[in-house]
Amino acid sequence: MSDEPRSDPAFGGSCPLPLADYPTVQMAHGGGGKLMQQLIEGLLVPAFSNPELARLHDGAVLAVGAARLAFTTDSFVVRPLFFPGGDIGSLAVHGTVNDLAMCGARPLALSSALILEEGLEMATLAKVVDSMRRAAAEVGVPIVTGDTKVVDRGKGDGVYVNTAGIGLVPAGIEIDPRRARPGDRVLLSGAIAEHGVAILSVREGLEFEIPIASDSAPLDRLVAALLARLGADVHVLRDATRGGVASVALEIADAARVGLKLEERAIPVAEPVRGACELLGLDPLYVANEGKFVAVVERARADEALETLRAHPLGRRAAIVGEVVESGPGRVVLRSGIGGEHLLDRLTGEQLPRIC
Amino acid sequence: MSDEPRSDPAFGGSCPLPLADYPTVQMAHGGGGKLMQQLIEGLLVPAFSNPELARLHDGAVLAVGAARLAFTTDSFVVRPLFFPGGDIGSLAVHGTVNDLAMCGARPLALSSALILEEGLEMATLAKVVDSMRRAAAEVGVPIVTGDTKVVDRGKGDGVYVNTAGIGLVPAGIEIDPRRARPGDRVLLSGAIAEHGVAILSVREGLEFEIPIASDSAPLDRLVAALLARLGADVHVLRDATRGGVASVALEIADAARVGLKLEERAIPVAEPVRGACELLGLDPLYVANEGKFVAVVERARADEALETLRAHPLGRRAAIVGEVVESGPGRVVLRSGIGGEHLLDRLTGEQLPRIC
Repeated sequence: MSDEPRSDPAFGGSCPLPLADYPTVQMAHGGGGKLMQQLIEGLLVPAFSNPELARLHDGAVLAVGAARLAFTTDSFVVRPLFFPGGDIGSLAVHGTVNDLAMCGARPLALSSALILEEGLEMATLAKVVDSMRRAAAEVGVPIVTGDTKVVDRGKGDGVYVNTAGIGLVPAGIEIDPRRARPGDRVLLSGAIAEHGVAILSVREGLEFEIPIASDSAPLDRLVAALLARLGADVHVLRDATRGGVASVALEIADAARVGLKLEERAIPVAEPVRGACELLGLDPLYVANEGKFVAVVERARADEALETLRAHPLGRRAAIVGEVVESGPGRVVLRSGIGGEHLLDRLTGEQLPRIC
Repeated sequence: MSDEPRSDPAFGGSCPLPLADYPTVQMAHGGGGKLMQQLIEGLLVPAFSNPELARLHDGAVLAVGAARLAFTTDSFVVRPLFFPGGDIGSLAVHGTVNDLAMCGARPLALSSALILEEGLEMATLAKVVDSMRRAAAEVGVPIVTGDTKVVDRGKGDGVYVNTAGIGLVPAGIEIDPRRARPGDRVLLSGAIAEHGVAILSVREGLEFEIPIASDSAPLDRLVAALLARLGADVHVLRDATRGGVASVALEIADAARVGLKLEERAIPVAEPVRGACELLGLDPLYVANEGKFVAVVERARADEALETLRAHPLGRRAAIVGEVVESGPGRVVLRSGIGGEHLLDRLTGEQLPRIC
């Protein structure tokens, strides 16, 4: 095959966005906000140009014979490695299981690729690996292939974990951010901002009256229950990780060219988390979750969806938090408790680096 | 599912090998030799216990409906990022395409997960990404999903790349290291040790009369040609990366509980590479390749296999280099040019760190 440059090269003559604005990589290029969007849409998607990647979903869905296979990858660089409610190992398993679930897929197998820093305590590695094992066993997904690399002292940060995953999308399920359409209801599977606050509280050495733990959890069964009940009436699923619920809402609005209207009062936030966010100057809507997702469903099925979610331990605090509207494509409007409305914007900087 | 410890816990009471011998991670734990084997077989395989992983192959093969799906992952931490004959981007694509090929699979899709260090030149990133694009386009495999993380300055090394891959194993193909059986012939697809020598020469600032470039290349078509001709008479395929041909031969001997006998004279090494190895004190049999593989085939088909390999540009210097024997299971004997025999051993230390 040819090595010739294409007629519309992603590099060279033209200067893609992130190259133009920033000559070097910034922390915010990994933060889930505007800069990351620029990097992905300005550099990576044009380079790897293909329709699956361009969907900008949590994973790709490919036809394999009669089956539809979901395929996803995530690297984890969270700091510290261990935090209330989880660690880099369980997070790496949950994160990839959840990305598969957000494609509507049941997890089939995971891979595990470790980048270890020379000098890492072997006992620390064993704890991380054991945590991956437990998390995978809880889901019932095997880790079938792996890789191990070691980098010199000072060229890593203990351990980085990459998990890729494959899963099967059941027949009749059609999850796609572009399927959000006016009238659809927006649901949230539970209370938000717990992962980000838990991580930050460890970093800052904060102690709260009520300790705040990460919500890191595998969402596959909760999603399976929802899909079993609603089938193709579930239009969009997105887990609200980096950038939080606000960023996910903006991505959906963008992908489907619709508006989203969210009711602030309806969005569940646990009291201690709300307090911690105020103290830390964080907007919970932008704080990362690792066990919560946004679902966009057919209006007439919203109550059933809510009932299904609430029947599951991980969905007890689920809520209908908004709707899809025709006006303002690409925009997300937040209606405040007292009735005012304001537009949500993408994060520019990095609210919480290395959150996952 | 239960979080209860199993009856034979991989951790806790009993102390797996690597924990006992080394309290911290050593560079050699990533080197493809004994320490890496201890880490994988003593810690990772018991933890993630499942038959596919236990095969210790380059990837897993899973049944998906009527199809057989290969699934593999590799992280790349090579230093420097750019070297004669390639860079971390092309290497990441070739490496995963080759791991799929070693399962007998045709590549279907790749993922790309980048761990970027804050401060990395955006132009460097663009070069790496463009190189991934070119390498994937040459193979004709789409990069369908991805992830980007940024770590603080000093906590990375420019860029680490993880690629996972999925591929389809054609009907009638059965590649498995355990299929090596006495009488089988051992083939090598070309001249060895070029990748390792190329990397080392850049690091050491060495200049040779004839510049030595990495052999990094996608092996999917060469393998497809071999499989199309020999079908199930190809028993084992392994690309000879970290640890070189010697380590791969030892792994095959171990997995199949057979002996391997290699003819030193038959093993192709380009003259400049041989000279460089002598200068650098390296044994070419242990030096990494990124575009060469070992094939174990049915004795009666060995000549056809050789003919098929040699007909392809990447297999021009292919050779029959040995045979599988019943005696000395787990052992590899090298017959030297003058007829002496000696046993090959696994590398203990790290011959060339961060080679891929």
